[in-house]
Amino acid sequence: MTRTYVLIRAKAGTMWNVRSDIEKIEGIVDVHVITGPYDLVALVNLPSTDNLKRLLEIIHDVEGVVSTETWIAM
Amino acid sequence: MTRTYVLIRAKAGTMWNVRSDIEKIEGIVDVHVITGPYDLVALVNLPSTDNLKRLLEIIHDVEGVVSTETWIAM
Amino acid sequence: MTRTYVLIRAKAGTMWNVRSDIEKIEGIVDVHVITGPYDLVALVNLPSTDNLKRLLEIIHDVEGVVSTETWIAM
Amino acid sequence: MTRTYVLIRAKAGTMWNVRSDIEKIEGIVDVHVITGPYDLVALVNLPSTDNLKRLLEIIHDVEGVVSTETWIAM
Amino acid sequence: MTRTYVLIRAKAGTMWNVRSDIEKIEGIVDVHVITGPYDLVALVNLPSTDNLKRLLEIIHDVEGVVSTETWIAM
Amino acid sequence: MTRTYVLIRAKAGTMWNVRSDIEKIEGIVDVHVITGPYDLVALVNLPSTDNLKRLLEIIHDVEGVVSTETWIAM
Amino acid sequence: MTRTYVLIRAKAGTMWNVRSDIEKIEGIVDVHVITGPYDLVALVNLPSTDNLKRLLEIIHDVEGVVSTETWIAM
Amino acid sequence: MTRTYVLIRAKAGTMWNVRSDIEKIEGIVDVHVITGPYDLVALVNLPSTDNLKRLLEIIHDVEGVVSTETWIAM
Amino acid sequence: MTRTYVLIRAKAGTMWNVRSDIEKIEGIVDVHVITGPYDLVALVNLPSTDNLKRLLEIIHDVEGVVSTETWIAM
Amino acid sequence: MTRTYVLIRAKAGTMWNVRSDIEKIEGIVDVHVITGPYDLVALVNLPSTDNLKRLLEIIHDVEGVVSTETWIAM
Repeated sequence: MTRTYVLIRAKAGTMWNVRSDIEKIEGIVDVHVITGPYDLVALVNLPSTDNLKRLLEIIHDVEGVVSTETWIAM
Repeated sequence: MTRTYVLIRAKAGTMWNVRSDIEKIEGIVDVHVITGPYDLVALVNLPSTDNLKRLLEIIHDVEGVVSTETWIAM
Repeated sequence: MTRTYVLIRAKAGTMWNVRSDIEKIEGIVDVHVITGPYDLVALVNLPSTDNLKRLLEIIHDVEGVVSTETWIAM
Repeated sequence: MTRTYVLIRAKAGTMWNVRSDIEKIEGIVDVHVITGPYDLVALVNLPSTDNLKRLLEIIHDVEGVVSTETWIAM
Repeated sequence: MTRTYVLIRAKAGTMWNVRSDIEKIEGIVDVHVITGPYDLVALVNLPSTDNLKRLLEIIHDVEGVVSTETWIAM
Repeated sequence: MTRTYVLIRAKAGTMWNVRSDIEKIEGIVDVHVITGPYDLVALVNLPSTDNLKRLLEIIHDVEGVVSTETWIAM
Repeated sequence: MTRTYVLIRAKAGTMWNVRSDIEKIEGIVDVHVITGPYDLVALVNLPSTDNLKRLLEIIHDVEGVVSTETWIAM
Repeated sequence: MTRTYVLIRAKAGTMWNVRSDIEKIEGIVDVHVITGPYDLVALVNLPSTDNLKRLLEIIHDVEGVVSTETWIAM
Repeated sequence: MTRTYVLIRAKAGTMWNVRSDIEKIEGIVDVHVITGPYDLVALVNLPSTDNLKRLLEIIHDVEGVVSTETWIAM
Repeated sequence: MTRTYVLIRAKAGTMWNVRSDIEKIEGIVDVHVITGPYDLVALVNLPSTDNLKRLLEIIHDVEGVVSTETWIAM
């Protein structure tokens, strides 16, 4: 089980809507609107890094998502 | 009572109009156009961080506001 | 209950030792060595932002910790 | 009366001590340890920008203060 | 008398036109197209920081001006 | 099999020595001194991200290595 | 034979399509979607830096590619 | 005779066309597409910095040129 | 006559002393401690860029000066 | 023949001494102290990128050289 953090930048004013949409996605453990250089952080538990591709594609399809950055626990 | 600073970037030439609009918002203690890397700083006193969501949504609706950053006093 | 993320930069080569020390601290839900611009991320659940002061002081005392950044869920 | 914000970076682990020392300085309206790219923000009200020189010299003498940035309300 | 520096970024190819327009503005002591991270620097002498608001609004109305940064002598 | 890139910054003048030491480490597929913002890039093939911890500790022990950044293929 | 790394930034959501297109280009040894500040890294082996011009033009024609950075092994 | 370096950023995919256009401009000693943070570097020899104004205006008119930075030898 | 701006970073707490020393240097038209990303700005009028070398060497010898950046009017 | 640019950062106050030392090195076509984000630029013509290794080692041995960045013409 690999813990992954997806840091999300969203269009101004859409942050809490993005949060509502992302917390319904399978594999998402938790998602918060946060202070600091990113707008949201999503916590992901995946059986392997292979499943990350599909999850990121779903996140990019959420309305308001501008870009993502992925951090993998080592 | 949590003190929060909202740093605001505004469209070129709209800074003092943004200031006029933001100082009318409930919960705003003070707001200034400032020198430095941001265009305005708004001082906020809120009973808890829960109220921040609504306040930020109102600020994002002000014409001329491009983006915000939130700093929370610890 | 406020979720807080503490992003940590550590001295080169000390990352997993810092992790071992931090995961024993009370209030820490989870801590990972991560890829990306920071070295570790610690997840914190606190009754209020008041408790953050003491927690950050304990983290700063961990050997190898160079600096921290705090993100608060809104 | 000119409102000035002094943004302060402090040595790791000294932030709340720096806060205690700075809030005693004359002319300081308020000072907070904050999340975000700086460690503390001090609010200053001064009759003119001339008095800023002396205030900044006093702040630089506080133990733990590494550097300051000054924003002046316009 | 407060000396202020207004650093200006201009649209590619408009720098010398912006210079011609800005040097006619009242309160501008000098203005140059410069090498380095900004495109122009304007030197301003003002009786107080209050007059800065109107001057910046005039500069923002000059065709080709994209953004400004203000530095105040202390 | 997960492909990982370890980007390395080295002390001025030690880059080719660091290269010689790192190319002997087990798990390293290739390592180059490169133009650009980093000094060296090491290509790693590992059965899982678990083995990364030990490999990074060995790289940090190489004389001249100042810091590393890890990118994992997704 | 000169080893070159081409770092690629792609439009949000196109990363794996860009990968499929680039791995068919002649001269590309390997290409991965990666965590970190870039979206993809392509490994190139070329007889000389002269051939780089044509290869970069082909990469820029791939749909979704926004910008590239080139690092040459020394 | 003052040696000046003009660093040029160009639209993706236009770098070698920009090079062809710029090497025909009078006063340009040499121009290369380069690896690193800029896209092209042009070497200029001018009798004085006065002639720089006209040369930069010509460069900004070249199709594909997005922005320039000027470094003057001291 | 070429107008040159020398932007100066100084050791914390030495800014006004640096100012006193620099305003005595021949060729310096004006020097201010400023808000913003630098600590001081010095205005220089020189017959040609050749004289800049000696002036910068004198400025670097002033106690408290950490680094300088030079902008030349075009 | 590959044209290479070596951008050099030098210790404060050593820039013209570094220039004198570097212009004597074989393979250096030209070297200037420059305005802008680097301190010096050295122009190099080399039969191949293989010779770059030795040249960079010689440059790093020059007193006052802090770090270098290498740009290769494509």
